[in-house]
This record gives sequence, structure tokens and C-alpha cells, in this order.
Amino acid sequence: MTKSEQTRQLVADVALRMFREIGFAKTTMRAIAGEAGISVGNAYYYFASKDDLVHELYLQVQAEHAAKAAEELHDSGDLSARLKTVLHAGLDVMAPYHRFGADFVATAIRPTSPVNPFAAGSTTAREASLSIFRAAVDGAKPAAPKKLRADLPELLWLYYMGITLFWVYDTSEGQQRTRRLVDGSVPLITRGLSLARIPGVGKILDDVLSLSRSVRS
Amino acid sequence: MTKSEQTRQLVADVALRMFREIGFAKTTMRAIAGEAGISVGNAYYYFASKDDLVHELYLQVQAEHAAKAAEELHDSGDLSARLKTVLHAGLDVMAPYHRFGADFVATAIRPTSPVNPFAAGSTTAREASLSIFRAAVDGAKPAAPKKLRADLPELLWLYYMGITLFWVYDTSEGQQRTRRLVDGSVPLITRGLSLARIPGVGKILDDVLSLSRSVRS
Repeated sequence: MTKSEQTRQLVADVALRMFREIGFAKTTMRAIAGEAGISVGNAYYYFASKDDLVHELYLQVQAEHAAKAAEELHDSGDLSARLKTVLHAGLDVMAPYHRFGADFVATAIRPTSPVNPFAAGSTTAREASLSIFRAAVDGAKPAAPKKLRADLPELLWLYYMGITLFWVYDTSEGQQRTRRLVDGSVPLITRGLSLARIPGVGKILDDVLSLSRSVRS
Repeated sequence: MTKSEQTRQLVADVALRMFREIGFAKTTMRAIAGEAGISVGNAYYYFASKDDLVHELYLQVQAEHAAKAAEELHDSGDLSARLKTVLHAGLDVMAPYHRFGADFVATAIRPTSPVNPFAAGSTTAREASLSIFRAAVDGAKPAAPKKLRADLPELLWLYYMGITLFWVYDTSEGQQRTRRLVDGSVPLITRGLSLARIPGVGKILDDVLSLSRSVRS
């Protein structure tokens, strides 16, 4: 790491700690610079705004999530077990930031935000997250229904976005309601997928996939 | 209408027009007061913040949606036709505010916002919106599967929240992609519901409902 990289990392670490400890609104660039022992101008050199720091947080949380998921996902397990592993790993990594979750979502949801998970600016971060779900699907035994395998990681990622939104609003102790939602909904998803063999259901799934492709283009 | 109610309505009308025309960020309370021909202090007397004006917009859009849906929902029609009517009516009413949609969502999504559709503060507005979907379900012929009828309005309302989020990000001309999503997804929902009679599917639906009840409490 160069000196410049070290300073950048220091600013990010200080900011993320302050977001956790005193919240997003109260953490000003001035306060961050003060805590990091550098000038305000220098802090702005690395991060032009608090939005950029949110982007940094998003990337760091995602990298941690990918590392934790890779460590816990073994070569075997059915899709249900693998999905639970991946989702709980995501919740574990996000846990320290719960207080800050609403601000993160409010920042991220603006279509022009670099942190918006659907926007072009976050392609790298989104791809990294998608690959976590691809790993969960690809290694599953028994394998997911063939015709779903290509689209499934993205659909599961969308489902994870929904879980994240639920988590933001979850004020229960340790966000236990979100954990219950994961444990309860994952088996429903995999049971739903196993119904794909029933002709009436399979046809609807085909139509869901083709609709989802058509509205995205 | 008393003089005070008239002034309040004037401030709201001016603010909503400015949100549409110049966007949320540029519309300051000072500019609103200026356009309305009243003092800034007077404007603040009616709306303590721009958030309050967003709340007002939410209520007005919802009242318009309910009126338009009631006018267009006739006593007959199957669930699919009725749902399309209700959803397109919602999109019609929101259309003039598309530019402002992202700001609205970013404001609304904060758990502490009075406009947050899931929060206690917006119970009245949420109930009004739920009742639109209840009307769509209750009048449908053939009737929706009995065991779903009680939960369906709320699930459909959640689906509508998802459609709204998609609409916010939809930059296609006249938000045509959202219209296609409505037209494509509504029949999939009603076809999915009609599968509830298949034992394997019905069991999963039961479990979806009981999970959805359990995580809400």
C-alpha cells in the first residue's frame, strides 16, 4: 500500500466507524477529518462526498460478504442450505451497520446514486454480489432445474435486495425477524422451484422468466 | 373551506406544481412562499418541512388513485382485468410526478418518515390504498380462492409497492416498460392463484401466508 492508499483507507475506516457509532447525519466530513488527524481538504481529496463514502461501505460490505460466503459454502449441500448460508452471511456482515441502514437505503435508492444497486455505476459491486448467488446455485446438489439455472442467481439477488429492505425496517432485537424470514422463505423458494416440473407451474415460471427478460431490455 | 384551509391548499398546490416543474431539490420553502404570495413564516405554519409536503402529496395522489379506481372499476370483471384497471389508474395518477419519484422514494423510505408506507404514521394513507385493492379483489368474478381472500389485498398492495419502485427507475418514454410489466405480471399472478387448487402448490401458498403473518407480528 502506498502512503496515499493508506490515508484513503484510514479515512474510510474512520468514517465507517463513525457511521456505526454516531449515525450518518452527525458524521460530517469535518468530524471525519478531525478523527483521522488530517485536513478537511485532504479528506475531500479522497472522498468527494458522504455518498462516496457510502459507496465505499457498499464495496467493503460486499467484499466481506463474498469472503464469508466462500468460506462457509462447502462443495456440497442442497440449494436450500446453501442459500441460507449465503443470506445469513450477508446479514452477519451488515449487522454492525443496522443503525445506518435506513440512511444507506435512502442514499442508494436515488437513481443517480453511484451506490444504487441497479445503476450502471455499481456494475462491479452488483456483479460481485451476483457471483455469490451464482456460487450458491452452481454448487447445489441436487442441481437446480436446468431451465432456471441461468436466471436464478439474478432472481435470488433481487430476493436478497428485498430481504435487505425488510432488515432495514426490522427493529426486533438483533433483527431476529429477518432471520426468521430467511429461514422461512428459503425452503418455500426451493419447494416452489421443485414444482417447476408440474406442467401448469412450469409454464408460469417460463412466462415469469420471459417477462423478467423483456422488461429489463 | 375556511380561509386557513384555503391557504393551506394553496401552499400545497404551489409546492406540488413546483416539484413537478423544477424538481424537489430546487423547490425551497422560500420559493414556495414567494409563488404563493405569502410570508415564509406563514408557509412554515402550514407545513413544517418539505417532508410534510411530501406527505401531503402522498395523500393527494392516493385520494386521486382511489377516486379514479372507483370510477373505472365496474361491478364485474375478473381479478386480472380489475387489477390492471387499479394499477394503470395508479400509474396515470403518478405520471406527472415521475421526475420527482426518486426524491419521493428517498424521503419515504426512511423508517422515521411520516410518509413511509410501512410506518405507523401513515396508517390512514396505507388503509386507503389497501381498500383500493380490497375493492378489486372483492368484486372479482370468479371470486379469488377463499383461503387467500383475506390476505390478498395486502399482498397485492406490496406488489404495487414493487411496481412503484420499478416505475421510479423506469426511464423509458412515458414509463412504457412499467406498463408492460403490469400487463405481463398481472395475468401471471392470477394464473398462479388459480394453481392454488393443486395440492403441492396450495400447501406452499399456505406456508407463504403463514410466514408472511408470522414475520409481521
